[in-house]
Amino acid sequence: MRIARFSINDTPHYAFVQRDANDGKDYLVELRGYPLAGQVEPTGQRYPLDADGVRLLAPVIPSKIYGLAFNYRAHAEAIAAGNPDIKPQPAEQMTVFMKPSTSVIGPDDPIVLPSYSQDMNFEPELAVVIGRMARRVAKNDAMDYVLGYTCVNDLTLRDLQGSDPMWTRAKGFDSSCPLGPWIETELDWANAGISFQRNGEDVPEATGSTANLIHSVPEQIAFISSFATLLPGDVIMTGTPSASGQLHSRDEATVTIEGIGSLRNVVIGERE
Amino acid sequence: MRIARFSINDTPHYAFVQRDANDGKDYLVELRGYPLAGQVEPTGQRYPLDADGVRLLAPVIPSKIYGLAFNYRAHAEAIAAGNPDIKPQPAEQMTVFMKPSTSVIGPDDPIVLPSYSQDMNFEPELAVVIGRMARRVAKNDAMDYVLGYTCVNDLTLRDLQGSDPMWTRAKGFDSSCPLGPWIETELDWANAGISFQRNGEDVPEATGSTANLIHSVPEQIAFISSFATLLPGDVIMTGTPSASGQLHSRDEATVTIEGIGSLRNVVIGERE
Repeated sequence: MRIARFSINDTPHYAFVQRDANDGKDYLVELRGYPLAGQVEPTGQRYPLDADGVRLLAPVIPSKIYGLAFNYRAHAEAIAAGNPDIKPQPAEQMTVFMKPSTSVIGPDDPIVLPSYSQDMNFEPELAVVIGRMARRVAKNDAMDYVLGYTCVNDLTLRDLQGSDPMWTRAKGFDSSCPLGPWIETELDWANAGISFQRNGEDVPEATGSTANLIHSVPEQIAFISSFATLLPGDVIMTGTPSASGQLHSRDEATVTIEGIGSLRNVVIGERE
Repeated sequence: MRIARFSINDTPHYAFVQRDANDGKDYLVELRGYPLAGQVEPTGQRYPLDADGVRLLAPVIPSKIYGLAFNYRAHAEAIAAGNPDIKPQPAEQMTVFMKPSTSVIGPDDPIVLPSYSQDMNFEPELAVVIGRMARRVAKNDAMDYVLGYTCVNDLTLRDLQGSDPMWTRAKGFDSSCPLGPWIETELDWANAGISFQRNGEDVPEATGSTANLIHSVPEQIAFISSFATLLPGDVIMTGTPSASGQLHSRDEATVTIEGIGSLRNVVIGERE
């Protein structure tokens, strides 16, 4: 099942995204209620995804966004090779950082490149959306707390990361967390291909699969919930699988995850 | 003016805290409305602070909590001397970290000492409460965005800080951000004495004054709002002035700031 948030003429709603068997197209089936609180029902309205006045929004507004650093060996090696200032931690240790809720943008929203960085990098990642309040959850029970999965672009100012030890500015600037296009509830988290397209073309060195995660999704939920309460709608960014690369003003940045879909945003300069 | 949030028989309200000229005691003057949105008016109810069923709550529920690391020379020197794993950054650079909203507790709420730490430290600090949405605010305009000030105890698991490079677990665990007792709108942020009491006794080496801040309150607001939008109710923890020290189960931890008041919490073990 795919759960989206969208606006029609600037009024936000939740929806299921459903394929019509007749025309083979995806429709937003508008819902009454709040999927994270349980009960929802169709209002009877539905819209084609490309209907006039329809705009997909970030599928959740998280109270917290945690991210895993260096959770794929290929990414840790790529960063260590290119950035003497940034020291990837050993893989045995889970390294977690935070992004603020104000960093979230939705599909097609502009990524605003800060004027003080010359090295903004994309990082395509699988995002886990928490469905139920989670505190001190055992690894074996962790999947009961997951609502589903979406795409995230964990944008990073690589040139600030070395001098910003908590990455607060390097990873927490406004628009640094594109999220979407919707929540897929049925994904096999352990076997999803991740790729990145810049201006419509695959960036082969950024490609990977969640099969290579060092710390699994249930391990991440168990670890984070061992110290902090996860709330419905909170997001865990599971790490980027391989090398990242630069984005410049006017670039189109697309994160694609097999079984979910594509999250597309265009970069604009802060002064534009 | 002092703005508090409290509950009476488990129903939350905002209030002004006012001293009665006749009996010299502080009263909660219950308000209708939301002080961060502007319009409030007294409901006509008022309660003594120690009335049955009255409980002070954290005065805001921040969407974001930023903290300044090593923002007093005496604290950076104390940490550097005792913790070879933790490298204080040079004072010229502003080092900012985040705590999650789930870490906030109010006055008299229990601090829950995590079972995986043997070195939880107190850090008494002046907290700035943002009153208006702030983005790319100039230092000279920054004070227009401040609602007021409260006390915070920036609890830190010192033994985890070295191996947790973003301090996400060391400073972001549930109950790690006691906040209160109320917001004082009239404080001179540049000249407030900060002290800490353990079990009712001053800890002299933790004492200090905001006169010794390295990065001033307007500089902090200008820096943080240069990369992230600050929302009404967001909190900036301005740094702890001097040495910190350990807290153990059953300790009473009190942060006192001249011109604001005292924030008191008791530590309990996670298994208690």
